[in-house]
Amino acid sequence: MTRKIIIDTDPGQDDAVAILLALAAPELTLLGITCVAGNVPLPLTHVNARRVCELAGRADIPVYAGCDAPLVRKLVTAEHVHGKTGLDGVDLPAPTLPLAEGHAVDFLIDTLRREAPGTVTLVPIGPLTNIAMAMQRAPDIIPRIQQIVLMGGAYFEVGNITPTAEFNIYVDPEAAKIVFGAGVDLVVMPLDVTHKALVTAPRIAAFRALPGQVGPAVASWTDFFERFDKEKYGSAGAPLHDPCTIAYLLQPDLFTGRHINVEIETGSDLTLGMTVADWWRVTGRAPNALFIGDVDADGFFTLLTERLARL
Amino acid sequence: MTRKIIIDTDPGQDDAVAILLALAAPELTLLGITCVAGNVPLPLTHVNARRVCELAGRADIPVYAGCDAPLVRKLVTAEHVHGKTGLDGVDLPAPTLPLAEGHAVDFLIDTLRREAPGTVTLVPIGPLTNIAMAMQRAPDIIPRIQQIVLMGGAYFEVGNITPTAEFNIYVDPEAAKIVFGAGVDLVVMPLDVTHKALVTAPRIAAFRALPGQVGPAVASWTDFFERFDKEKYGSAGAPLHDPCTIAYLLQPDLFTGRHINVEIETGSDLTLGMTVADWWRVTGRAPNALFIGDVDADGFFTLLTERLARL
Amino acid sequence: MTRKIIIDTDPGQDDAVAILLALAAPELTLLGITCVAGNVPLPLTHVNARRVCELAGRADIPVYAGCDAPLVRKLVTAEHVHGKTGLDGVDLPAPTLPLAEGHAVDFLIDTLRREAPGTVTLVPIGPLTNIAMAMQRAPDIIPRIQQIVLMGGAYFEVGNITPTAEFNIYVDPEAAKIVFGAGVDLVVMPLDVTHKALVTAPRIAAFRALPGQVGPAVASWTDFFERFDKEKYGSAGAPLHDPCTIAYLLQPDLFTGRHINVEIETGSDLTLGMTVADWWRVTGRAPNALFIGDVDADGFFTLLTERLARL
Amino acid sequence: MTRKIIIDTDPGQDDAVAILLALAAPELTLLGITCVAGNVPLPLTHVNARRVCELAGRADIPVYAGCDAPLVRKLVTAEHVHGKTGLDGVDLPAPTLPLAEGHAVDFLIDTLRREAPGTVTLVPIGPLTNIAMAMQRAPDIIPRIQQIVLMGGAYFEVGNITPTAEFNIYVDPEAAKIVFGAGVDLVVMPLDVTHKALVTAPRIAAFRALPGQVGPAVASWTDFFERFDKEKYGSAGAPLHDPCTIAYLLQPDLFTGRHINVEIETGSDLTLGMTVADWWRVTGRAPNALFIGDVDADGFFTLLTERLARL
Repeated sequence: MTRKIIIDTDPGQDDAVAILLALAAPELTLLGITCVAGNVPLPLTHVNARRVCELAGRADIPVYAGCDAPLVRKLVTAEHVHGKTGLDGVDLPAPTLPLAEGHAVDFLIDTLRREAPGTVTLVPIGPLTNIAMAMQRAPDIIPRIQQIVLMGGAYFEVGNITPTAEFNIYVDPEAAKIVFGAGVDLVVMPLDVTHKALVTAPRIAAFRALPGQVGPAVASWTDFFERFDKEKYGSAGAPLHDPCTIAYLLQPDLFTGRHINVEIETGSDLTLGMTVADWWRVTGRAPNALFIGDVDADGFFTLLTERLARL
Repeated sequence: MTRKIIIDTDPGQDDAVAILLALAAPELTLLGITCVAGNVPLPLTHVNARRVCELAGRADIPVYAGCDAPLVRKLVTAEHVHGKTGLDGVDLPAPTLPLAEGHAVDFLIDTLRREAPGTVTLVPIGPLTNIAMAMQRAPDIIPRIQQIVLMGGAYFEVGNITPTAEFNIYVDPEAAKIVFGAGVDLVVMPLDVTHKALVTAPRIAAFRALPGQVGPAVASWTDFFERFDKEKYGSAGAPLHDPCTIAYLLQPDLFTGRHINVEIETGSDLTLGMTVADWWRVTGRAPNALFIGDVDADGFFTLLTERLARL
Repeated sequence: MTRKIIIDTDPGQDDAVAILLALAAPELTLLGITCVAGNVPLPLTHVNARRVCELAGRADIPVYAGCDAPLVRKLVTAEHVHGKTGLDGVDLPAPTLPLAEGHAVDFLIDTLRREAPGTVTLVPIGPLTNIAMAMQRAPDIIPRIQQIVLMGGAYFEVGNITPTAEFNIYVDPEAAKIVFGAGVDLVVMPLDVTHKALVTAPRIAAFRALPGQVGPAVASWTDFFERFDKEKYGSAGAPLHDPCTIAYLLQPDLFTGRHINVEIETGSDLTLGMTVADWWRVTGRAPNALFIGDVDADGFFTLLTERLARL
Repeated sequence: MTRKIIIDTDPGQDDAVAILLALAAPELTLLGITCVAGNVPLPLTHVNARRVCELAGRADIPVYAGCDAPLVRKLVTAEHVHGKTGLDGVDLPAPTLPLAEGHAVDFLIDTLRREAPGTVTLVPIGPLTNIAMAMQRAPDIIPRIQQIVLMGGAYFEVGNITPTAEFNIYVDPEAAKIVFGAGVDLVVMPLDVTHKALVTAPRIAAFRALPGQVGPAVASWTDFFERFDKEKYGSAGAPLHDPCTIAYLLQPDLFTGRHINVEIETGSDLTLGMTVADWWRVTGRAPNALFIGDVDADGFFTLLTERLARL
């Protein structure tokens, strides 16, 4: 039996790779993709999501547009990382697949109410606006969620968009506060782990050598997208954030972490959006997340390359 | 031509009087009532709203249930003011009018999209959760709103639920931040003005002397509801908050205020939910609200009593 | 037996009047004046304090220079109210009285250690930097303080320098937090009371009609100083803040207030320096101050005029 | 010519080692030791400092008592790390060396004013209360400070006393804000570097093997003190924080770091006392510190062992 998931996303090159990995996995049924404003504005993210589905030959996946701004704050985007389109690095045609009708938040609520309780997993890899709004609109769906496996936050890697915040959480910290406080089975892929899954030249070469269109596209995206991080961090490669979530669903033993308390800073401009992770368990606050800290990077890239080869 | 309004509410005795005043006003068309958690939990507020419509013989008004909790924070209620039911003071039968189908937020969005732009006024008299969520879900409705006339906040009267916050704003400060920042034509009835519209014994007597059921019910409600405030403030009567909004729609010249900047405190526990009103215009921040400061109290109670007499 | 006091001040016209009132009162022994940065920078405040002593013919009062900046923040001054010198309105000669040797904070500590416990009252009428630093430097002096009667803060009048903060507290909120938290017998004269002691034209005329130099100087100062407030508030006169503290020492029954909890906001830029007064006792927090709310304004001005006549 | 330093401290076993290292260094002249409340209360820290001087046979070093509480907040101590006395691990006799007369803050001010400008370096290895208060009391000393080399803060190691704060900064964040904002030549030894200088069993053995009393005492202290950290972090050894500052003065090329901006969080309870280090230079804020990130640990322990052998 396959595991049903919904990916909530703001593609973004690494989002695209996460979607492709999900589409390449027979263990997963992707019920739909819900889009949110984040890396680039909403009108681009839902176009990008459809482009990626078509690239994989999967025009059957419904793609929904969701919130175009964070719950309370003004939208911050990251074109300096992802380029103007969000998918710079490969020229994909405009999608023919139309946007699904209805709002992403309604799709989330309706799906969770329709499917059997505890059988749908959410995979948010952008700001948490859609997920938080669905929880607020329809609290009855919260106990029906099987698990949330999200990319976001940082502890020892501390931050990327500011000295203390990772982009996805920073963009909508109030939404993050809602999701982290909801009492759901929550797995968090922070920068701590994604910075241990670096796309080095040999790994990009392995993507590019894959038959078909997908491998070369992934190679070109990671090539583009990582340029920014390589320059900034001066490392041999750069992190591939979002696919870690899907890899966790496929092969959780690649990852290790701690069940700990994670609070979201929403009250200070200086540290806004920080995921205050009680890694050393010094606070006495109750655990609310499995905060991943390490990954078998070779195992991760082997899995990723093998699966992408199937598309 | 009448003015179309939607009341967003958490009844609450003074909410009930506001609804009755709207129903008694031929100048207004009440398109529907959207309910929210606030004075009492949501399952009580939508029952109460329907009770009030039936009391006025208006079972045709659609009543929608909305959000049962604030956007980001845990719900705080005010049974110490309103009693266990929210409408303590009069025993009304359970409503026969069923709850309208659909979520209050969808009703708000659909109505604003369906009606001509600039023809629908929102009258929020509880926490601003529903309104904020509608704005977030569907930003296209924001420029279609004719005006928002809300009860909430305080400046010179400072606070009631805490030393610095009025209840409606305190319960959902993030929602308030969204609404005050939306760029809508906004009229605010803070404690500053409602504390100048005190229900004194002669004014209650005038309600009770009205023919029909409505007057005596209003008298009993205000009698109950004001007990708390009279004890606390030691004044001759107590404020009748929510009906000020409807009175403003009917007779704006009863009220005076200032077009000023009003910011919402969301970052400090000590002053959480404060409406920081730049009454003296010392900050240089752009005005975003007409903040009402004074009322012709006799004119207000004359209007209220005359209108309630029609029901 | 007279009561021993130290005035801590940043003159300022109303500070000058407070000093003069103290010098005119046989019930008080002014042990010294400690100066602080506030209305104008420190090099002006200690010159001004000496000018005022000389105007009153009291070159025997030691005047000390203290802190030239708040504990943690950058100094904010108020030349827009007090003029460039801080004492605009009257031209006084440069003082011949030299500055006393030593730092104001040392004078505070040494005096409190030398005098019998419980016999020295502090009267801070500027930012609380000196007082807080003395308490920090020498905590043993805290239980030796008889009483602190300070001008600062606001509740129903809310603020003057920002929408939510009174100037003295706003300039050094951390110092205020220390003083309000020290457990001392504390009397607070906030804007709530000083805005009820307005200097109207007849009251200024009464000053001017006094024999000698002092009355006319006070008339000219209040004339100058109040111009700003009259314009801003549109009232018939303007508040005379600082002398309320000395008047309280001379005739406490002119004033009424409440023993309540008062906390200082230091964590939010929006509401920085607010004195969150639990006037309605809704928080359950322990009282730490007598927060004055009302004054017999005629009684106050009668006292002030009669005493100034003696100089 | 030797370099003149003042150590400001709250011993603490690692503070003791730092003092001993300074006393063992002919390149340094220790003008005095100023004590502050921190690891343990003030009455213990100044006794401990004198014990350490006597252990080294240096009863000539003046030891001053300073502030017994942070500038604004209540004192937090760390007996869970350092034991009840602060120097648990070795029984040292009560000191015969008396406490120097005068307040530590006065000693700091007087010394900086007396010595030639730019010739005195401050080495704060506890909370920054004394240093901040001296800067506040006498701003003229700030440009006279040659350099401040302090132990405190954390970026990639994030925190020890809370998930986001290192102990020294957490205890008095307002003092830290003053010191980091003073514009002084500032070198910061955060947990990032001290966690790379682990006291392993062989390193302790090397201390114990030294002739005289000092080596064995250091061995016993580090043995005791590190127990806590080893348990918590599960590492082979534990950090030896404070001596890094003195080692930097003796052999700066053991250390590498970045000239960056470092801000102190004082506005949020959740992240209070965090040193927000702009390690990746993403904020555009001006650099104010050399934030050390790495150390040649073997070189450091070689230096430390060699020097302690001289005592």
